Amino acid sequence: MEIEFSKWFFDEVNPHLLQLHAFEGMIYSGKTKFQTLEIMKSPVFGKVLLLDGKIQSSEADEFIYHELLVHPPMLAHPKPEKVFIAGGGEGATLREILKHPSVKKAVMVDIDADVITISKKYLPEYAAGAFEDKRSKVYNTDARKWLAESKEKFDVIIIDLTEPVEKGPAYLLYTKEFYQIVQSKLTENGVISVQAGCASYTELLNLKAVSHTLKSIFPIVSIYQADIPSFGGPWGFTVASMNLDVAAMTPAEVDKKLKARRITDLKFYDGLTHMQMFTLPKHMRKATRGGRLITDDSPLYLYKG
Amino acid sequence: MEIEFSKWFFDEVNPHLLQLHAFEGMIYSGKTKFQTLEIMKSPVFGKVLLLDGKIQSSEADEFIYHELLVHPPMLAHPKPEKVFIAGGGEGATLREILKHPSVKKAVMVDIDADVITISKKYLPEYAAGAFEDKRSKVYNTDARKWLAESKEKFDVIIIDLTEPVEKGPAYLLYTKEFYQIVQSKLTENGVISVQAGCASYTELLNLKAVSHTLKSIFPIVSIYQADIPSFGGPWGFTVASMNLDVAAMTPAEVDKKLKARRITDLKFYDGLTHMQMFTLPKHMRKATRGGRLITDDSPLYLYKG
Amino acid sequence: MEIEFSKWFFDEVNPHLLQLHAFEGMIYSGKTKFQTLEIMKSPVFGKVLLLDGKIQSSEADEFIYHELLVHPPMLAHPKPEKVFIAGGGEGATLREILKHPSVKKAVMVDIDADVITISKKYLPEYAAGAFEDKRSKVYNTDARKWLAESKEKFDVIIIDLTEPVEKGPAYLLYTKEFYQIVQSKLTENGVISVQAGCASYTELLNLKAVSHTLKSIFPIVSIYQADIPSFGGPWGFTVASMNLDVAAMTPAEVDKKLKARRITDLKFYDGLTHMQMFTLPKHMRKATRGGRLITDDSPLYLYKG
Amino acid sequence: MEIEFSKWFFDEVNPHLLQLHAFEGMIYSGKTKFQTLEIMKSPVFGKVLLLDGKIQSSEADEFIYHELLVHPPMLAHPKPEKVFIAGGGEGATLREILKHPSVKKAVMVDIDADVITISKKYLPEYAAGAFEDKRSKVYNTDARKWLAESKEKFDVIIIDLTEPVEKGPAYLLYTKEFYQIVQSKLTENGVISVQAGCASYTELLNLKAVSHTLKSIFPIVSIYQADIPSFGGPWGFTVASMNLDVAAMTPAEVDKKLKARRITDLKFYDGLTHMQMFTLPKHMRKATRGGRLITDDSPLYLYKG
Repeated sequence: MEIEFSKWFFDEVNPHLLQLHAFEGMIYSGKTKFQTLEIMKSPVFGKVLLLDGKIQSSEADEFIYHELLVHPPMLAHPKPEKVFIAGGGEGATLREILKHPSVKKAVMVDIDADVITISKKYLPEYAAGAFEDKRSKVYNTDARKWLAESKEKFDVIIIDLTEPVEKGPAYLLYTKEFYQIVQSKLTENGVISVQAGCASYTELLNLKAVSHTLKSIFPIVSIYQADIPSFGGPWGFTVASMNLDVAAMTPAEVDKKLKARRITDLKFYDGLTHMQMFTLPKHMRKATRGGRLITDDSPLYLYKG
Repeated sequence: MEIEFSKWFFDEVNPHLLQLHAFEGMIYSGKTKFQTLEIMKSPVFGKVLLLDGKIQSSEADEFIYHELLVHPPMLAHPKPEKVFIAGGGEGATLREILKHPSVKKAVMVDIDADVITISKKYLPEYAAGAFEDKRSKVYNTDARKWLAESKEKFDVIIIDLTEPVEKGPAYLLYTKEFYQIVQSKLTENGVISVQAGCASYTELLNLKAVSHTLKSIFPIVSIYQADIPSFGGPWGFTVASMNLDVAAMTPAEVDKKLKARRITDLKFYDGLTHMQMFTLPKHMRKATRGGRLITDDSPLYLYKG
Repeated sequence: MEIEFSKWFFDEVNPHLLQLHAFEGMIYSGKTKFQTLEIMKSPVFGKVLLLDGKIQSSEADEFIYHELLVHPPMLAHPKPEKVFIAGGGEGATLREILKHPSVKKAVMVDIDADVITISKKYLPEYAAGAFEDKRSKVYNTDARKWLAESKEKFDVIIIDLTEPVEKGPAYLLYTKEFYQIVQSKLTENGVISVQAGCASYTELLNLKAVSHTLKSIFPIVSIYQADIPSFGGPWGFTVASMNLDVAAMTPAEVDKKLKARRITDLKFYDGLTHMQMFTLPKHMRKATRGGRLITDDSPLYLYKG
Repeated sequence: MEIEFSKWFFDEVNPHLLQLHAFEGMIYSGKTKFQTLEIMKSPVFGKVLLLDGKIQSSEADEFIYHELLVHPPMLAHPKPEKVFIAGGGEGATLREILKHPSVKKAVMVDIDADVITISKKYLPEYAAGAFEDKRSKVYNTDARKWLAESKEKFDVIIIDLTEPVEKGPAYLLYTKEFYQIVQSKLTENGVISVQAGCASYTELLNLKAVSHTLKSIFPIVSIYQADIPSFGGPWGFTVASMNLDVAAMTPAEVDKKLKARRITDLKFYDGLTHMQMFTLPKHMRKATRGGRLITDDSPLYLYKG
């Protein structure tokens, strides 16, 4: 084995499995009020954003993550006008949302203003101007609190958060109580999508718990997944709704809707991708059943359950 | 980050990306005439077989690999009677082949007798008795030479080899010249499947070269993939044929054929899985186009191209 | 950087410094009643014994550790007849003690019988027959308890224990209360030597605390150290006595005494070595001053203080 | 094992032994004309300078290295007026030399101007003003060429170079031919000191070869060593002279000379340290004998011999 680099970033997939990324240098390194924030330069993935030591996105494959999280719920909704993002720091989720011409208002609530400021400076191609769009409203406060107090309802709510770490900023945004608030703030055909963690066959704890908890509120819940190389394997997402079956869109429907909305620049998502990512292999269909209920009193912590 | 184990196995995904597996102990460690052979015990994956330091299969997810490699070509063929395996040491490929009731003879040519002997002893649940089946013929010689000199033709040929390492035992079984031999030994509706290496978006060198080289011989070639956790991400395979379009089978057809052949114990493969694994996301459809031609004079080496 | 091996053992020097040892295979791996026990084969150090994941000794350099721990106190004592070892599992401490012709009885109390049994089987060259010597008495019980209840006194007491890990078998054998027991069981010119942990300039916590605690009981206490490559750097030891100044022996005296006792086969220890290892560089003389008191109520834990 | 940091620097002690340093951030990272240059921030060692991925010095323990390299030859010489440094980038070797009041001229020839510029900016406390001292003359060219062409002779010559890496900037400054040039440029009582690599018992290749090669030119050659924690263990140095026996100075002589020269601020070096570092334990006296001759035609490369 020949190893060319001497600086390595240790990403814990689980306590028995580490992924080591060589990196060429640090572009930024600091602490915000809520978390550590680092941007490293990887020879494979380009610029990589890390919060509390976990990879959030990389230049090379952030398009997978952000298209995946945004377009299924947006496209399933007949005419999304108001969209809410919990988290979303880098601005790439906002960027994808604004591609849908019906959108009139996109509210993004990320507790950590520094993530936005530093992303704007060092990762400007992520937001690609989305923060300057007149339809964007950005607030730096607790997303749960903001949503609970909101008088507005939303057509699509996108949960784009860091993973639930003990005492971290996000663990109370993965609970049944939070999803109840979300449900109460959705319009009639509203849809929610959630990044839900690792989707590797041997590491399904988070994904199952998030899905199971969503099922306690929403009648229609679907898991979907894609390989995100910088995350070290397949990553899981969940969509949920009271009325709409996001997963049921056919490849032809997806392609037709994308065309109707004049969304032509996607690199990851199209009709075939939609079908592929909502179809799980047999062992995964079985393994993703069940899961535990996450509540405020019994939260979920990464690696710990 | 809390790390519970002190013994780690370094698996090189590429020179900039390492996967570290904790392991509890070594079950076997030795050198054969051709390669190093180790069996370690992983808290995540159970028994793990390594040849020349690369993971070949693990107890926890070998079913994915072996079902994936065997059933698509076997099922696409209307009545596979004679099957050839290049490599296949542990016997699990043989195990899956013998599930098809039409099979009369399964020839397995693995250069390394020790891999078979040691797998029988330490990994008996892999072959699950397949070596003792009367239909099985096992030879320990060079698979290319054996096939070139064979007077028989085969309905399905399965290439289940270690990756092409410089001076390793397998690199001349990835070339155009070898695939020409394979083509000449296939019956009219013959199909070949090949394990073709990493299918991660940023590591497609091997998969593309294998597919491109197969396309120089066969008119119908399809890439397919699945996440194999112990391999550290998605793994790529290719099927090729002069006449049969393996990928084109519909989910219903696959399920019907499996039922007709009374194959009811698969954990990974069924109709939906077939559709899912032959459908690549948009960026992968684009990224897997092209590739270089592998020839005896210009072989492909892992990590080097 | 070219890395030839794929199996690595992680040795934590401190939470910010890891030493990774490549190893070729595991010779033994198991759990005793008290700790995990592993013997690995290193291309650099040969057989390496690990207890609870910490390196205890290696074939290549155990002679340094064992000569260092045993001969300074043994030689300082005019005529050691009765010797006590707390710990000492592999038998190499016993081996060195028995080289002194005046020894009539060497009592070794190691709580873990399995360490002895497995060392005898896999590391027979460590004890080199010492367990079979008629002067050796081995007990498998708690060394503190045994010593407290002993009616005998000893000329030399050697503390050859694993490091003090929380809930581990040894942490109550590093406290003031234990050293008080030791002191009460020493004959008039009795000497104690203690392995006291890492002696690297940036990692002196254990060494200082052990020395400081010994100083609360004994008027004459000296630190000494040597580089033990398999331990990842310099290792610290302490000798203490009510009367004898071990460190003060001159090179000539040491060599003369060794000759008088007909000890001619040492590889590490002689007069010059004695002088060298009891002389600390200026910064170490300063840095090893002070330290905290270790008591039963306020024990010391490795890495935690 | 609990690991608190996620960014690690891999330092190869040898191909079977790695030292991993956690680091908090990169202070500087770039490429000069000759080598990569990085400054990282370690929680243990503070600022750490790396050239071509090898640690050169750290804030926490550079005093050991620089005092060790400079003061023994300077003090052995009765009145060093002209001093030459081959290498010496950070300026700390110069800093120590200038403490000797007899010094009239200190010539430093380091091929890499960028190392000096960047050290001045990010590591100003290393040189501590030495570059601005009127006695200092700094040239950025090949030290061997400069010395060969020099019409001046020097009282002390200090070889403070990176290790000999294939195609690296320094490997021709470790050969017999180079030491011949050095010898011809020394004044009558001239002394040379050389940093000569790892002094760990299992890794003596470089140290022995350097000493052996010096012995082919100089009648009086002594090895000495000290533990430098950031280097991962004991480090070896060699002094050589036609007339002076540096090692033979007694502790009292050293202390007296330091006092006479009013050098009162040393942290590492004094009389006892001198004695300690020139005295090797018995196994090291034996193991450091012999070695191979390094010549221009048969150079020495790190790890390769």
